[in-house]
Amino acid sequence: MLIGIIQQQNTADADYNRRRIAQKTRELAAKGAKLVINQELHDTPYFCQTEAVDKCDLAVDIPSYTTEFYSQVARETGVVLVTSIFERRAPGLYHNTALVYESDGSLAGKYRKMHIPDDPAYYEKFYFTPGDLGFEPISTSVGKLGVLVCWEHGSQAAGRLMALRGAEMLIYPTAIGTESTDTPEEQARQLEAWVTVQRGHAVANGLPVVAVNRVGYEPDESGVTGGITFWGSSFVAGPQGEFLFRAPVDSECTELIDVDLKRSEQVRRWWPFLRDRRIDAYAGLTKRFID
Amino acid sequence: MLIGIIQQQNTADADYNRRRIAQKTRELAAKGAKLVINQELHDTPYFCQTEAVDKCDLAVDIPSYTTEFYSQVARETGVVLVTSIFERRAPGLYHNTALVYESDGSLAGKYRKMHIPDDPAYYEKFYFTPGDLGFEPISTSVGKLGVLVCWEHGSQAAGRLMALRGAEMLIYPTAIGTESTDTPEEQARQLEAWVTVQRGHAVANGLPVVAVNRVGYEPDESGVTGGITFWGSSFVAGPQGEFLFRAPVDSECTELIDVDLKRSEQVRRWWPFLRDRRIDAYAGLTKRFID
Repeated sequence: MLIGIIQQQNTADADYNRRRIAQKTRELAAKGAKLVINQELHDTPYFCQTEAVDKCDLAVDIPSYTTEFYSQVARETGVVLVTSIFERRAPGLYHNTALVYESDGSLAGKYRKMHIPDDPAYYEKFYFTPGDLGFEPISTSVGKLGVLVCWEHGSQAAGRLMALRGAEMLIYPTAIGTESTDTPEEQARQLEAWVTVQRGHAVANGLPVVAVNRVGYEPDESGVTGGITFWGSSFVAGPQGEFLFRAPVDSECTELIDVDLKRSEQVRRWWPFLRDRRIDAYAGLTKRFID
Repeated sequence: MLIGIIQQQNTADADYNRRRIAQKTRELAAKGAKLVINQELHDTPYFCQTEAVDKCDLAVDIPSYTTEFYSQVARETGVVLVTSIFERRAPGLYHNTALVYESDGSLAGKYRKMHIPDDPAYYEKFYFTPGDLGFEPISTSVGKLGVLVCWEHGSQAAGRLMALRGAEMLIYPTAIGTESTDTPEEQARQLEAWVTVQRGHAVANGLPVVAVNRVGYEPDESGVTGGITFWGSSFVAGPQGEFLFRAPVDSECTELIDVDLKRSEQVRRWWPFLRDRRIDAYAGLTKRFID
């Protein structure tokens, strides 16, 4: 299956960002993409760098102009489209939500980010209430998609639960990068850690993993930090964690990658981790800590 | 803390293998090692390549000549020693067991392999009944050691449970390699997958990971397969999955690696995955599959 990914540098002009995504989706579809995956919160700058109530004006209802826009792009191009929005669920209640549109423009499903980070420059707990839909893959015409979001790269449980519910692929729309005061060595370690832990999910679950990150520098309006240089480096790994594609660290990238979903079953036969799970001994995983 | 690892090619002579391990442990201790880690089932060839009841004669009681030997090595050298034995628990009842000796020669604790593989050339389900001690770190004078064994490299749950119980490091005595009929590309993918998934455990848990593998070719006495070429490649990763050391793929290796256990807390502050776990939504992890 041909998968398209869009690694983009965003501007403050949401309409412009959207138009570029639409155009790239058309190009990918014309080359044969069946599934197109966007980065996290792809319509806007990464507003979570600062805590400001007015930024909540960026949130959108489902449905709304924004969601209809992507529904139309999916219908027009005939691809399954993974999008990521700042969801306004109720007045003052917001989520970081991935919406997946079927190739006919219908909403195949949504995933509300379950694990919410909060660090300097990533003040997501201020904006997003944790998701309440659980870890449910979204069924589409191209397979069951285990959509997770960014920070959940660190949650082995999230990936596993998607796999146990039949996900055929893990997908991470992402916005992650480096802060300017970190040493180059530390920046490199963090990028490599981000890649490695997600490749690990591929191996442990015998599934392809697709991570699509934004790219480029965005300043911190509050001046608290030096801003984020999003590190791009979007990648696709096969079910043994092997690289099928790596995007550049410092430039936009629109790319088509061929992923063989059938390979997962062969890999899982070779390394049948799912067969040997000790479910009798895993109850502690639902504890905060075991003192 | 200085950690010693012993990646060894074994012979059919258990006494000879043991003497070499003892000598290498003395050398590592003389250089300052506080903890020395051995590969899986380090006294013998990897007998699980064939299913033969007579191989059960290799199993040893606790205590026995073998266990006293390693107790004595620990006491003599003053190191904490991680060993791996074929445990005879009762007539006809065997485990694949890691024993950890304190630096005074006392038994600090044991871990009975919980996840048992079974594949051509790795017929462990024939020999070893699954462990019944759970995922409990072993407390020692050098820290709480999360000892797991080989095939458990694929169990994210095992590593996580060790971390939730306070393990300060994950340790994998291992015997894994390639079968001669696999293509070189497939062999490379498997080795890389083995390394990557364990580095992933380091990242997800913010802990160092030490994997110590055997090395060299051992024939399959049954003639069913072409035998195993154990791929060595023992490694130590820091809490961001960064390599601190990688051993060669095709030769023995006795090495001292400096691991800063204090770094884990800093790394977990940067990427506080433990803070954000959605324990309300993890119950499915104790299910075999969720249809």
